[in-house]
Amino acid sequence: MRIYLAGPDVFLPDAREVGAREAALAARFGFEGVFPLDGAAPEPGDWRAIAATCEGMIRGCAAIAANLTPFRGPSADPGTVFELGFARALGLPAFGYSTVAASLRERVPDATRDAGGRWRDPDGLEIEDFGLADNLMLEGAIAASGGVMLRVPHRDDPWRDLAAFEACLSAMRRVLKG
Amino acid sequence: MRIYLAGPDVFLPDAREVGAREAALAARFGFEGVFPLDGAAPEPGDWRAIAATCEGMIRGCAAIAANLTPFRGPSADPGTVFELGFARALGLPAFGYSTVAASLRERVPDATRDAGGRWRDPDGLEIEDFGLADNLMLEGAIAASGGVMLRVPHRDDPWRDLAAFEACLSAMRRVLKG
Repeated sequence: MRIYLAGPDVFLPDAREVGAREAALAARFGFEGVFPLDGAAPEPGDWRAIAATCEGMIRGCAAIAANLTPFRGPSADPGTVFELGFARALGLPAFGYSTVAASLRERVPDATRDAGGRWRDPDGLEIEDFGLADNLMLEGAIAASGGVMLRVPHRDDPWRDLAAFEACLSAMRRVLKG
Repeated sequence: MRIYLAGPDVFLPDAREVGAREAALAARFGFEGVFPLDGAAPEPGDWRAIAATCEGMIRGCAAIAANLTPFRGPSADPGTVFELGFARALGLPAFGYSTVAASLRERVPDATRDAGGRWRDPDGLEIEDFGLADNLMLEGAIAASGGVMLRVPHRDDPWRDLAAFEACLSAMRRVLKG
C-alpha cells in the first residue's frame, strides 16, 4: 500500500537521507512510502510543475501521513496542510503526527484572555482552545477519515527524530491493515 | 454563483460584521459569498462537527476565495490552507489574496544563505525563493485551477481592509463570468 509522506522534511539540507530513512521505516510497517522528492524532477524553478507532480503523487497513494510539527510559527507547514486537505477531499484516510506535544493554544505566543474568557493572539484573533495540535479543520479531517493524530515529543531534533512518525505508522498499520 | 470565503476572518472579534461586509462586496460582483460562520451552528466545542460543516459548505460552492494573508508567522492560516487544498482536489477554481505584498522568502525572519546560495531559516530548512506569496503548493494549485493569486497591501488593518479581497472578486468575475 502506497502512502504519501507529506511534510516540511523536503526542506532539510539532508532531505533525501531523511526521506530514505522514512521510507525504510514505512517498509517495516508494510507500506511503500512516497516522498515528495521521489517525483519526476521538473525544470529547476518550475514551481507549477513541482506542484502538479505532488498533486499527482497524492492521487497515486492510498493514504497520507502528514508531518504537522510546528513550522516557522505555531502551526504546521502550509504545503503539508494543503496536501492534507487535498488528500481528504479525495477520500484518502489521513493520519498526522507532530514532534511537539503542546496544543495549538499553548503554543501561540503572547496569548491573552478577553472579557469573555476567549484566548486571543496579539492581533485580537481568537485562538482555538480545543486541546488540538493545530486548527480544527486538520484534526477534524483526520478523525472523519478514520485516521489518527499523534504527538510524540522529540528528543534532540524536531526534524529528524522519527519517533512520532513511527507511532503514526503503527496507527496506520492498525487502522488500514487491521 | 456560490463562492466559499475561506480565511482567518472567522477568528476576529467582529467576525460576523466582517463576513457581512465581505458578502455584500461579493454580491456587488455577482457572487453569493458563503462565510464559514454561516453554517449550521453545532454544539459549542464540537470541533468535529464544525470541520464537517465547513467541508460540506465547500462542496456546495462553485469556487473558493482564500484569504492567504500571513497569520501568526510567515505563512497563511492553516485552516484556510486546508480548505484551499480540499477545494482544489474537488476541482473548484481557486483564487487567493493577501493584504501583504512581500514574498514568502522576504517574510521569513533571520533568513541566511547557505554555501550553495539557498535561503535557509534558523532551523536550516530551505526557504522557497520563487517570489510567491507562500508555499508553492498553494499558488501552484491556484494557477492550475485557472485562478489568480493577488497581493494588495493593506492600509491600516491587515484583517479588515478589503482592497485585496475586492481585487480577488474582480479577478473571479473576469475568469468565471467573462
